Amino acid sequence: MKIKNLIKPNVRSLHAYSAKEIPCKIKLDANESPIGFQLKREGVMDIETNRYPDPDALKLRRLLSKRWKVSTDKILHGNGSDELIYYLIATFGGPVLCPVPTFSMYNIISAALGEKTISIPLDENFDLDMDRMLDSVKADMPKIIFISSPNNPTGNSFSDDKIVRLIESFSGIIVVDEAYQPFSDSNGLIGLISNYRNLVILRTLSKIGLASLRLGFIIADPEIVGEVNKVRLPFNVNTFSQYIAIESLRESGELRAIIKEVRKERRRLFKELSKLNDVTTFPSDANFILFKVQQPEVVYRKLLKKGVLIRNVNNSVPGCLRVTIGRKDENRFFLNSLKDVLKNEKGGASQKDK
Amino acid sequence: MKIKNLIKPNVRSLHAYSAKEIPCKIKLDANESPIGFQLKREGVMDIETNRYPDPDALKLRRLLSKRWKVSTDKILHGNGSDELIYYLIATFGGPVLCPVPTFSMYNIISAALGEKTISIPLDENFDLDMDRMLDSVKADMPKIIFISSPNNPTGNSFSDDKIVRLIESFSGIIVVDEAYQPFSDSNGLIGLISNYRNLVILRTLSKIGLASLRLGFIIADPEIVGEVNKVRLPFNVNTFSQYIAIESLRESGELRAIIKEVRKERRRLFKELSKLNDVTTFPSDANFILFKVQQPEVVYRKLLKKGVLIRNVNNSVPGCLRVTIGRKDENRFFLNSLKDVLKNEKGGASQKDK
Repeated sequence: MKIKNLIKPNVRSLHAYSAKEIPCKIKLDANESPIGFQLKREGVMDIETNRYPDPDALKLRRLLSKRWKVSTDKILHGNGSDELIYYLIATFGGPVLCPVPTFSMYNIISAALGEKTISIPLDENFDLDMDRMLDSVKADMPKIIFISSPNNPTGNSFSDDKIVRLIESFSGIIVVDEAYQPFSDSNGLIGLISNYRNLVILRTLSKIGLASLRLGFIIADPEIVGEVNKVRLPFNVNTFSQYIAIESLRESGELRAIIKEVRKERRRLFKELSKLNDVTTFPSDANFILFKVQQPEVVYRKLLKKGVLIRNVNNSVPGCLRVTIGRKDENRFFLNSLKDVLKNEKGGASQKDK
Repeated sequence: MKIKNLIKPNVRSLHAYSAKEIPCKIKLDANESPIGFQLKREGVMDIETNRYPDPDALKLRRLLSKRWKVSTDKILHGNGSDELIYYLIATFGGPVLCPVPTFSMYNIISAALGEKTISIPLDENFDLDMDRMLDSVKADMPKIIFISSPNNPTGNSFSDDKIVRLIESFSGIIVVDEAYQPFSDSNGLIGLISNYRNLVILRTLSKIGLASLRLGFIIADPEIVGEVNKVRLPFNVNTFSQYIAIESLRESGELRAIIKEVRKERRRLFKELSKLNDVTTFPSDANFILFKVQQPEVVYRKLLKKGVLIRNVNNSVPGCLRVTIGRKDENRFFLNSLKDVLKNEKGGASQKDK
């Protein structure tokens, strides 16, 4: 018996997502927060391990509801944003439209579910190419559009105006993935949910200190939430995640402090990076910085040799690397390592003339 | 805009799985273990909440590999068995064949993914109706067969011989869900994995004290594992679940003690239940007992009034209720409450003549 013949054709042609651990001293590749949330002893130790989690995550959703000033029936919880992307595509089907480069999971999950993805390149400023997007809406009849804003890996936010224009000219579902919104100056688009029934906001706790939990949520019209909920596995967010997410939201000062620190370090790192010769930096609203160098593959490998792991995005943004904002000491080590690498590359000074 | 029109037809006709919390004093409805796993302080408090989980769950899979004496590449981890059922159906597609009554999620997930389910009734002894199963294999050309053994909610195991006959006469995938195997006398079918490449064994920690974690896994041919892994979300099992699962498997004496206690209580409860007039009990290899009464709806409601929540399975097994094995005191309270309810129903004695 050939197992290959039993596999659905769309799955047969897929490759497993590779998230192999690469040994390093300083890990600045995964857009994690450099600072974690401090667990308090009392509660987590008392969790009854033998009981199923609350399938409705009601306490958690009520807290999110207060925090975001939307009713609880507009919120649905997921095992990370990833799972909600799965459910959104399972609910609405494809084709799925994405401006690219962007977060790879939209495409990967769409393919796993046998749906087609349409990729529309961003313009030369990494902004939405509205003409091409609107053309594709008409020609390809997508069911869902995923827009990551701030966008990964480019770091920029798209203007509210452009997104609203898209919502208004599209009769399908628009998912705005605001994973990186906490690091931007904007408030995001949650306020527009009651105006646009086809708007879905995707959020996560993964970037603000809680990647270990896998806790994402959508905010949308209650009817959309109700439909997506039908394809949700009842016990998708486990008891520990629910518990710790609740604790962290109650101690929201700690999360705010993490965000503040990351933003401060981003300013500093951006300034320093921008001073370097042969480095082009792109402004960031997220917890990472995209930058361009002449030999991205070489720089990536040489940094890794020095123990610094960043993300090589040369494939999706030619010439570019992406560095996650780390702790002050990590950023300094990265910066010094990068200076070394560039100096040896060029055999010259790496500081730009002022 | 009508949101309904945007929803995929197969999802539109679904209903959300209802797992509403029903207030009760004694919860014997969900086949949870009555005893939990005792968390040790040191480790869980030290987890770096800001880091993503190990996508490959390598430490956990290595432990499972040792425990089950199969190589690590034959094991894949899921956010509960539920998620692995999702992935299996996403990988192989439908139709999905199930003997019924059985665990409801096979049907629910199949429908969520737009696949057809074929239900073949068990015979009058709750055993596999081999003729009808084999007929359906020929006529309906299912891609996957799900067999829960021991079966939920009937409690019996199917014979290895019958399952092997099915495997040998079917060229699709057979998933044997051994969620309740730890409570049976059999060793399950993991030993057959190397003989039959189309056999997938599904296991979970949910029934043996760790339902809070959502930790399931499959054991199968490495090629099957590789294909299913392609549709898996990379960070599907979070750090806390991985950590606690590892701890519990290392302290496997504690898990064995839980299983031993449940089996002891099952023997006692079965004996006592069988003594009651107007109660027909069915032997169980699982951590619950199925029993028949004359007025299941009334008995269910009256038990709940006394604070005892069990599962009303009258819809799938006419006349029947399912009670999860609880702690000794819980089982006694359930039994006394049931005696009361039956006595008031009949206005007479409820003990069978010896």
